Formats: sequence, structure tokens, C-alpha cells
Amino acid sequence: MKLLDGKKLSEKILGNIKGEIKKRKLKLTLAVIQVGENPVSQIFINQKKKACEETGINFKLFKFPAKVSAPKLKKEIKKIVRNLANSGIIIQLPLPKKFLPEDYNPPTTLPVFGWAPFLNLIPEEKDIDVLSEKSLGKFYQGTLKILPPTVDGILRLLKNYKIGLIGKNVVIVGVGRLVGFPLAIKLLKEKATLSVLNEFTKDALSFTKKADILISGVGKPNLIKGNVIKKGLVVIDAGCSVKKGKLVGDVDFKSVAQKASYITPVPGGVGPMTVACLLENLVKLNV
Amino acid sequence: MKLLDGKKLSEKILGNIKGEIKKRKLKLTLAVIQVGENPVSQIFINQKKKACEETGINFKLFKFPAKVSAPKLKKEIKKIVRNLANSGIIIQLPLPKKFLPEDYNPPTTLPVFGWAPFLNLIPEEKDIDVLSEKSLGKFYQGTLKILPPTVDGILRLLKNYKIGLIGKNVVIVGVGRLVGFPLAIKLLKEKATLSVLNEFTKDALSFTKKADILISGVGKPNLIKGNVIKKGLVVIDAGCSVKKGKLVGDVDFKSVAQKASYITPVPGGVGPMTVACLLENLVKLNV
Repeated sequence: MKLLDGKKLSEKILGNIKGEIKKRKLKLTLAVIQVGENPVSQIFINQKKKACEETGINFKLFKFPAKVSAPKLKKEIKKIVRNLANSGIIIQLPLPKKFLPEDYNPPTTLPVFGWAPFLNLIPEEKDIDVLSEKSLGKFYQGTLKILPPTVDGILRLLKNYKIGLIGKNVVIVGVGRLVGFPLAIKLLKEKATLSVLNEFTKDALSFTKKADILISGVGKPNLIKGNVIKKGLVVIDAGCSVKKGKLVGDVDFKSVAQKASYITPVPGGVGPMTVACLLENLVKLNV
Repeated sequence: MKLLDGKKLSEKILGNIKGEIKKRKLKLTLAVIQVGENPVSQIFINQKKKACEETGINFKLFKFPAKVSAPKLKKEIKKIVRNLANSGIIIQLPLPKKFLPEDYNPPTTLPVFGWAPFLNLIPEEKDIDVLSEKSLGKFYQGTLKILPPTVDGILRLLKNYKIGLIGKNVVIVGVGRLVGFPLAIKLLKEKATLSVLNEFTKDALSFTKKADILISGVGKPNLIKGNVIKKGLVVIDAGCSVKKGKLVGDVDFKSVAQKASYITPVPGGVGPMTVACLLENLVKLNV
């Protein structure tokens, strides 16, 4: 079993970003919009802040109380967008539930897009998370010059370890806004044989047992155990939940590692890759 | 075995459109842009023309020779777009290969989107085929009020026969621009357990044999035979190729019909549903 070392690769990427910023004398600012308090969001924001400090990117946090009204928040987002100094802008999700539309229907609308009216305020050239409709349309068409950070992070990790995708049986567990859904779209284009499982799937075992690559992005600790996979597969743990104040993935590392040929650790796998690719998007959109 | 009768259902939809147009006194024009000669395109264009005549929609064909230059074609498309009388506009695909970008790379770029610079000239409110980046972004987010016509046609057909999607094993064969790719996105949102096979898939049988619903959109006659499926499944034939001057699907009807519980005939299945849903999109975007 070999580790897919996201920490190491992400440090290399951050090092390159730092060099690029220095060489080109770039003045970049990452603007993060946070609404209300959420311990998981706070961890992610701290990670982004730290990566900014390491690479010489200016970090600006715009924090609003959970009780902010929708019109007020939209007005503030527009102000942040208009400020030329903010070279990349992200809205830290989730936003408060009160902002979801009345006809919001989780089973058929991806959770994130209930907040589309906010996300669509970010113009393509600053949308480093690829969540606005314009960026998503280009991503779908394959004409966007960046990728959603988590997708990019996972693909780069696989590429770094020379793990190909064409013709591979790839199983994605979970159809979330940041992992399963955008990843499915990208993998279809990469000509992987793709299966996507969700909470309604019957006989999930028949899929996981024949996967060459399994990617989990559900947010349920120990969802993926060693007994559901075949020997030699590649496991990417992109799940994320909090247990005793710590981020944990979906994969029961101990039992899965005994069978997997490659596996991402948590922490130190997809997480740091996502942050590094996010900052790389910021550079790509500003050179 | 029961037929999924697309002809019958599409006639009902066209009847409703006709009634709606009359009741609301709508003046609608479908503008079709055709470049060069292509026998399959010609068949599709004729079908659309016929459906327009049946429903009271004005049909206008803008035909350009294959030798037209890209700048000239773009200029003409812009002119057609600016004309308020053209309430819905489609560019009949494929366009000539010479319009594809130099770095065009079929395995990782969906064929259609090599022509993105042309498709993106059609504004969302006239893009009844859902192929421009703006419409696709909204489709991805789930905020578009129409669906790509083939996707809509297939979903309506299933719904009409009370065939549910949640938790079903749905297998899509082929990742094309008009069937496999947009359908995959919609089915992920509908919480089907989705598998998408392509020309690099190993052991396709292990997927097709456990499908509850199989949708083929490849364009290879007799690709799907009775021996690759289990008894009782639902088969949607959205493939399209020409054999002796006639449109044929991907499914070997005779052998598959012996095992399937439901099956679309070709012709009379997905084809007329696509045309009816296209015209319905035209109405939806203009009321």
C-alpha cells in the first residue's frame, strides 16, 4: 500500500505559486465571504489563510452575522466584487438555510445551488471555486481554463502517481456539490467508466467490489470499510466531517489500507490539494 | 413487453402546444441554422419543420454553404439572433470540422463544444437546445426553466409510463453531447444510481446485466442485443444512425424486446419526443 500524499504534493504546488508570485511581482488578494458561525467552515477558512500566508497572497475575510438579510448580503458581495483589489472571491459554504428559495427541493437540486443567486454574483474572472453559472457552463463545455479545486486536486494526485483514468472502473460515492457532481462531469470527459452511488443505491457492494478507483465524498466517518472493496484498488477519501473537533474522512483507513494499492490519508490527502489548487486558480485567473 | 410509445405521447404534447399557441395568440418562429449538406441533419430538420407546421409555429431555415467562413457565419448568426421575430434558434449539428479549434481533442472534449464559439452566440432566452454556456451553467445549477430536449423527452416518456428513477440502476451507454452527457447530469440530480459506459469500458456486460433501465445513445446499429441484458429491464434507444437511407437506433429490437418489460421503438420512440420537447421549450421561453 502506498499513500497518495496530498500534503507533499500540495506543498510543491504552493512552492511553485510562491515562486510565480515573486517572479511576476503579482499582488493578489483572496477575499473570503463568511456568514455566521460554523466550526467546519472555520477550519477550512483557517487552512486557506495559512496557505495564503505561505505563498504571499493577501488574505481578506469579510465576515457577516447569520442574521444578515439577503438584500444586504447581496449588496455587500457586489461591493467586494467591484473592488479591483480582490483578485479572487469565494463564498464559504454553507450559507444560512434561510437563504434557500421557498421551492428548494434537496433531492433534485444540489444543495449548493439553492444559493445560486449569491454565487452568481461572482464574475467568472474571480470565481476560483467554479460555482457561478457562467463558470459552470464553461466547465461543462470544457472551455474554462481552471477546474473546480477539489476535482483538480484529485486529478493531480492521481496523475502524480501515474494512475490513469481511461477505461478504469471509477466509483464515486455521494453526489455532492463540491466532490461527486463536478467530479462526475470531469471523469465522463476523461472517458472513465463511471458509476455514481447515492443514499438510495441498492446493492452498493456490487459496484464497490469491482471498482478500480473509489472516490468517496459523503461526509460519513467509516462509511467505506475494507470488506466492501477488492484488493489493489485506489481509494480517494474526499469525505469531510468533524469528530471530536477534528476533520475526518469517509474511509476506515485501517481496514481499507490493508487491501488498497493506493490510499489518501485524512488529513494530508484531498484537503491540502484542494486548498493548493484553489490558490493556483487564483494565479491562473490573474496572469 | 410494452412499447414506450414516443409517437403517441409526442402527438399529445404537440396538440397541447397547438392549443396553447392558439389560446394565447402566440406568433412564434423557429429559426434553424444549417451549414453544408448532411443527410442525417436533413432528416432532423424535416422532422422539426413538419412539427412546426402541425403546431402553428413559423419555420425559417437559414442555409449556408459548407465553404462559409467562421467570421461570416458568426456575423450571420448574430443577425439572426438580433431579429426579434426569431423566437427560438437552433444550430443544426454537426457543423463543418474546419470550425473546430486547433487544439481540439476529442477524447477529453465533447464533440459539440468544439463549436462553442458558435453555440454561445445564442442567448439563453432563444437557446431551446440548451447548448450555450449560459444555459448549460443554469442547467447544471438546476435553475434553468427548460431541459435539453432529448433529456426532457426521455424523462417524460419514463414518467408517462410511471417508471421511477430514484434508486434505480440506470446504465447509459455512450457519452455524447445530446444524450449521454446531459442525461447523466440530470439523472444524478434525480438520484438514480448511474453508470456510464464508453468505448473504453472493460466488462460492459457486468453493468448492462444488472441495469434496471438502459439508455443507449451511441449511434451504432445492433450494439445492444438481447444477450447483454436481464429480463424485465426498461430499454430506451436514443441512438441514431442511418442505414439504407433510414434512421435506425442502437438496439436490436427483436432480441431485446423478448426480455425487456418496456422498450422504445425506432422510429417512434425518443426521436419524436425530442422534437416535441424542443418546440415546447420554444413555447416555455416565450410566454
